[in-house]
Amino acid sequence: MVTKTKTYAQRAKDHPNTAAKQLLETIDRKKSNLCVSVDVTRKANFLAIIDLVGPFVCLVKTHIDIIEDFDHDLIEQLQVLSKKHDFLIFEDRKFADIGNTVSLQYSSGVHKIASWSHITNAHPVPGPSIITGLASVGKSLGRGLLLLAEMSTKGSLAVGSYTEDAVKMARAHKDFVMGFIAQQRMDGVGAEGGSGTEEEDFLILTPGVGLDVKGDGMGQQYRTPREVIVESGCDVIIVGRGVYGNPNALDVDGVRRQAERYMKEGWKAYLERIGEQ
Amino acid sequence: MVTKTKTYAQRAKDHPNTAAKQLLETIDRKKSNLCVSVDVTRKANFLAIIDLVGPFVCLVKTHIDIIEDFDHDLIEQLQVLSKKHDFLIFEDRKFADIGNTVSLQYSSGVHKIASWSHITNAHPVPGPSIITGLASVGKSLGRGLLLLAEMSTKGSLAVGSYTEDAVKMARAHKDFVMGFIAQQRMDGVGAEGGSGTEEEDFLILTPGVGLDVKGDGMGQQYRTPREVIVESGCDVIIVGRGVYGNPNALDVDGVRRQAERYMKEGWKAYLERIGEQ
Repeated sequence: MVTKTKTYAQRAKDHPNTAAKQLLETIDRKKSNLCVSVDVTRKANFLAIIDLVGPFVCLVKTHIDIIEDFDHDLIEQLQVLSKKHDFLIFEDRKFADIGNTVSLQYSSGVHKIASWSHITNAHPVPGPSIITGLASVGKSLGRGLLLLAEMSTKGSLAVGSYTEDAVKMARAHKDFVMGFIAQQRMDGVGAEGGSGTEEEDFLILTPGVGLDVKGDGMGQQYRTPREVIVESGCDVIIVGRGVYGNPNALDVDGVRRQAERYMKEGWKAYLERIGEQ
Repeated sequence: MVTKTKTYAQRAKDHPNTAAKQLLETIDRKKSNLCVSVDVTRKANFLAIIDLVGPFVCLVKTHIDIIEDFDHDLIEQLQVLSKKHDFLIFEDRKFADIGNTVSLQYSSGVHKIASWSHITNAHPVPGPSIITGLASVGKSLGRGLLLLAEMSTKGSLAVGSYTEDAVKMARAHKDFVMGFIAQQRMDGVGAEGGSGTEEEDFLILTPGVGLDVKGDGMGQQYRTPREVIVESGCDVIIVGRGVYGNPNALDVDGVRRQAERYMKEGWKAYLERIGEQ
């Protein structure tokens, strides 16, 4: 049975990676494959948006380094919201340095990402040492790593052999790499004939999802939840400004309505994919 | 006359990019093409090392996000040292996200990189929007951007067409891109026949330089200043732990001696390259 047609619950049961298992269980429990990306620069807006969208998401994606009034209390409140609303946290750090440096960036500094973010991500461009550097910090904490196998921007260089190499690197480090940021399933990509990749289950998280717009004027391109989940076989849709609009003029009911709308569209697409609609 | 055999002073005179011009002038004034990478996690060690190596460097490379006790005073003191010892600052952030996100990461957050770092760098993997996103913040401030065209780690994916695409992206954004992190000169790389790239002058800054070791056990590989400057035609050597050793047991005289040693080796290699030794 191919991964694409299995239920999230079946995949959770069998998954060897702690963070992947947690995420699949959360998706199944909440009937939501929606991740909201909260790209705002003020703590109050950040927490307000997360409290609003929390009930509708399996995952909250953060860019902690854009928040101007970041402090330790922000992390504590984020963790409280994570428990209150039952979602995981994904710091979208896009690590991209050599092993020694990323291990410090992940564990240390003002932000101490490894101590609170269940999931993070990295570009494969430095080679396998980026994975071992991050794993040296995150593996014992039960964290999971996503590799950026593709990007949703115009002119992305994460294509062809680059994407294949990313998948090969992940396959060699399944104990820590739980999946990919990508635009489509990666099952068997870059595999030699008969290498037994049928059993692998890498989660695919996909940014650039929108219902109402096609681009942001800064290179980002959008697809619908149905295109992403049904046609391309991805597992989690990532939506940002499409849910919360202008962070400095939050429309409380509007944000909830949009979050619920994306959640329902994502779930409907999943049911279609597994043949249950 | 090819860039490789021009003097730093000649290149400074003609360079259209503000940050590149400043860096070339500093190199010429101090007779140093040495950049020290200060990869430590405590403010006191960070400032102590920079004060020690300051007289011997044209550029200090920082990873501001690994410093646990970062505060605004650290930036003020770093700027004082930059003036005292006459060096520029290069935050090695390795931006690697979509245009909208990198513009926020560069301008905002706790670290406000654009406000103090003369030079920063980015991976070309997201496509050209990463340059325009960063330029929207840094260009009016006279900042310069380096693209990572190659990496010094084992199994790096920044090779072949990836490197060519990086150079093409830089060539299309010369107003903000001042050069590359790379292992060799990029003159004419990825250029179509007769496209007039003879006049281009991208600075090449090269990490992975060491006189005493070959690797760090975490994927980093080292070459000597002569290999980097003479054989590969690079412009600035980047040295880290090779200069300052163990940050928690600083040998004050040893650090000065190593910094001077690398400075002299780098300059000797440059003189050989331009035929003046």
